[in-house]
Amino acid sequence: MITHPSPLTHLLSIEAIKCVKARYFRAMDTKDWPLLADVFTHDARCDYREAFQSPGATTPAGTDDDILNGRDMIIAYIRKGLLPLISVHHGHMPEIEILADGTATAIWPMNDLLRFHAGPYREMRGYGHYHETYRQEDGRWRIATLKLTRLLIEMTPA
Amino acid sequence: MITHPSPLTHLLSIEAIKCVKARYFRAMDTKDWPLLADVFTHDARCDYREAFQSPGATTPAGTDDDILNGRDMIIAYIRKGLLPLISVHHGHMPEIEILADGTATAIWPMNDLLRFHAGPYREMRGYGHYHETYRQEDGRWRIATLKLTRLLIEMTPA
Amino acid sequence: MITHPSPLTHLLSIEAIKCVKARYFRAMDTKDWPLLADVFTHDARCDYREAFQSPGATTPAGTDDDILNGRDMIIAYIRKGLLPLISVHHGHMPEIEILADGTATAIWPMNDLLRFHAGPYREMRGYGHYHETYRQEDGRWRIATLKLTRLLIEMTPA
Repeated sequence: MITHPSPLTHLLSIEAIKCVKARYFRAMDTKDWPLLADVFTHDARCDYREAFQSPGATTPAGTDDDILNGRDMIIAYIRKGLLPLISVHHGHMPEIEILADGTATAIWPMNDLLRFHAGPYREMRGYGHYHETYRQEDGRWRIATLKLTRLLIEMTPA
Repeated sequence: MITHPSPLTHLLSIEAIKCVKARYFRAMDTKDWPLLADVFTHDARCDYREAFQSPGATTPAGTDDDILNGRDMIIAYIRKGLLPLISVHHGHMPEIEILADGTATAIWPMNDLLRFHAGPYREMRGYGHYHETYRQEDGRWRIATLKLTRLLIEMTPA
Repeated sequence: MITHPSPLTHLLSIEAIKCVKARYFRAMDTKDWPLLADVFTHDARCDYREAFQSPGATTPAGTDDDILNGRDMIIAYIRKGLLPLISVHHGHMPEIEILADGTATAIWPMNDLLRFHAGPYREMRGYGHYHETYRQEDGRWRIATLKLTRLLIEMTPA
């Protein structure tokens, strides 16, 4: 169904989407997995294949294992990755568009810091963009698809 | 008194609160103490006990001296701490809620950088969240309470 | 002409300006020069004299060559500067004011990271504020003037 939201509804949706993304970041960094699950649609899809790789880098690329289908797979993947370390994820000025079909797109610049407790690296600092779509489910805007692209990744040896 | 702000008033309040927090950051980093005083309510309370300590760290925790009651104490504390160094404070995607009683809550992810001119450390980089409440005083939204929690602090020796 | 925008128009303008600035950052970092050109008015003026210098630093200051007049000069300048390196620019909580004459002012805290492929330095990390004015041209808000001031610049030798 094609809808034409009023300018006010448009702004309310944009602010709601900003809050959802803020919760995504806070949930990851405070390891609050129920809160993290709540920001995704049930059938959400995340593509983290570029999460650990600079553009043009010779380090191994992500594989299809870094594409997650469904909220449960997404939470299990993020939980496994972040549980053994300290993480900081920050999102910056987004470009959000509310579309006529009731969905939305967003591009979020981001940077993250992973501090490892063991292994060959002390920390990773990454910089990139999230490319996302949002949809309302159970009365709230939620992340429907997410793809992370990178500008740069810095690895500091232990 | 319980009020029910319109959606438009709701959005105007959220934008006003974002501006207040932006002024808090800019005032600290440009050492503009009158501007900084203006963002707090007269009876504001700040809890900076975790400002200089990573979670679980063995470094000395903050003490009750890091809890400030009233705008004057807050400004004196921040001024004393920041005057001898260069600081950069950045706030990221917030979660703001306007409450029915005319107050608001906010959680702001943040990072800060302190560059020291003397002493055993060259710089501190911190990452965490502000947990705040806001209230209108003299016709403007202002910070009423602030508590800083940390995800990570990095100290670089001189 | 003096106009008095409604509160709703006011908020729509602020969100539009935030999107323009987000495109400015993304265009620079993805080296999308047509997108970058689109965020400026035709007669925009940028002052990047402080872009590469900490306050009080003894390093050479910018010169009048770092003041750009007109969209074409701006894009040529940024393109030449960023093409040979990887850049990351992030904007944080802004203070935006919509003025009665239909223009707007904005202050944006920022940080940037330049990763060099050659030369004496491995990377530059800068922190500061953009001081800007915005104007509507061809039906869209665009950057009319921009001046970058700095809090701190860190240079890492190669």
